[in-house]
Amino acid sequence: MSAPVRIGAQHIAKHLKNAKGHDQILRKVTVVHLKDGYCHAEMNVSEEHTNSLGTLHGGLSATLVDNVSSWALMSHAGGEYPSVSVEMNMTYLKGAKIGEDIKIEANTLKVGKTLAFLEVFIKNKSSGDLLVKGAHTKFLLR
Amino acid sequence: MSAPVRIGAQHIAKHLKNAKGHDQILRKVTVVHLKDGYCHAEMNVSEEHTNSLGTLHGGLSATLVDNVSSWALMSHAGGEYPSVSVEMNMTYLKGAKIGEDIKIEANTLKVGKTLAFLEVFIKNKSSGDLLVKGAHTKFLLR
Amino acid sequence: MSAPVRIGAQHIAKHLKNAKGHDQILRKVTVVHLKDGYCHAEMNVSEEHTNSLGTLHGGLSATLVDNVSSWALMSHAGGEYPSVSVEMNMTYLKGAKIGEDIKIEANTLKVGKTLAFLEVFIKNKSSGDLLVKGAHTKFLLR
Amino acid sequence: MSAPVRIGAQHIAKHLKNAKGHDQILRKVTVVHLKDGYCHAEMNVSEEHTNSLGTLHGGLSATLVDNVSSWALMSHAGGEYPSVSVEMNMTYLKGAKIGEDIKIEANTLKVGKTLAFLEVFIKNKSSGDLLVKGAHTKFLLR
Repeated sequence: MSAPVRIGAQHIAKHLKNAKGHDQILRKVTVVHLKDGYCHAEMNVSEEHTNSLGTLHGGLSATLVDNVSSWALMSHAGGEYPSVSVEMNMTYLKGAKIGEDIKIEANTLKVGKTLAFLEVFIKNKSSGDLLVKGAHTKFLLR
Repeated sequence: MSAPVRIGAQHIAKHLKNAKGHDQILRKVTVVHLKDGYCHAEMNVSEEHTNSLGTLHGGLSATLVDNVSSWALMSHAGGEYPSVSVEMNMTYLKGAKIGEDIKIEANTLKVGKTLAFLEVFIKNKSSGDLLVKGAHTKFLLR
Repeated sequence: MSAPVRIGAQHIAKHLKNAKGHDQILRKVTVVHLKDGYCHAEMNVSEEHTNSLGTLHGGLSATLVDNVSSWALMSHAGGEYPSVSVEMNMTYLKGAKIGEDIKIEANTLKVGKTLAFLEVFIKNKSSGDLLVKGAHTKFLLR
Repeated sequence: MSAPVRIGAQHIAKHLKNAKGHDQILRKVTVVHLKDGYCHAEMNVSEEHTNSLGTLHGGLSATLVDNVSSWALMSHAGGEYPSVSVEMNMTYLKGAKIGEDIKIEANTLKVGKTLAFLEVFIKNKSSGDLLVKGAHTKFLLR
């Protein structure tokens, strides 16, 4: 019997390419690094990601927080199980415009018996300015 | 000089039909009632709204919370100004599967000088079960 | 073997009177109604509850949200188990001054197998103005 | 006319010693370092800080998050103004028992024109285990 395989960046790339669910809106996301509970992804903001003010939509940011932290969790020892969201908290510090490159970083803070805790930072890639801070608590379906 | 026009359900329908930004993922949303800071919208969950477990995606729910509460705010006296998100908190109580009809209700709790506070409930339309509770704090760009 | 006894208002009054832990700061709280997952409590704001601006301290409000929702949960069928906090989110809409009577109301939104979800509203008792909105997610130690 | 004086650790020690409001419950807190938007404080958990399970009370943790982040903000260039809470989000990862030394660290993420964003980590001082993660958004009364 083999141990569960932890996911890597190439799994995500393949998944996004073929996604038919809501994840298809992340098709322009590139996973740069994914290992041991940490995920670093990047995306160039384009029109499809924006709200009616022409800036990064808060719901798209939330989808980034949800997915990138879930990928981080799946790359963590003990986090290979399917999981569902319990809480997700978003703080919006600064907007992002079309053409900006953003960097999304997720860390696994703790994986317990039934709950996992993650945090996410979305930054402007060139300036390093913090745009969005996210927190995500998941329930593990062991 | 005329007073600012508060938006109504028909404005949203037209907006969603022509949306080129992230709002296009809400094209299957129908606004049933929108007046005086309250918005009631509905949607049938289909594959494009789901996560890899086949249930309503937490990021799509977040987009619903963001938009439906923003529409509620724009229909409120004193809320006609453009606004940006400051915080958005999501609590996920129960999942929703493909084919389920969901009801999204947003209330304006307070519109202050610079901040507005809103709450959102996403429910299963037939059973009334609470699926997602959202809170949204916005900054008014007066 | 007897069924677990759900707590009532008189249990809380006795508990607060004898509290040696942090709950002692709630000794001026009166539980008006406690039944079936709902708790209504009241308090007159005095100097010991205030911050350096002379208004209700956000940490005292958080303690009210924590305790009043936990009491509500303990009065719910299926909520008699000890529980610990997972998340608590506070939104501060308006301040309260010394001498104001405040009303704290907690509702149990859902009691699942391992998680319970509660919401709390702190209002000015006479005007009904919403001062603080709290959300509390607890883990049941069955 | 002199510039506003940013507070330091000694101001907090004096304030806590004489506090008559809710801050008096923090009289056992020591501020180790307070400068440029960062605050590091410590406390030994004693009975007065606990809940009915004998562990650190979630409301006391919330008061720590509220105050330590507010001190951090007051030590930041541009954060010397009085401010009030808008949002405070708490995530509880692990409990703390009587006798444990805890470390509270607050960082200022951003000070904008009207809003300031802070984050707080409460850890077990010896093991470094994360106990509580807090987020605090404040409104500046300029």
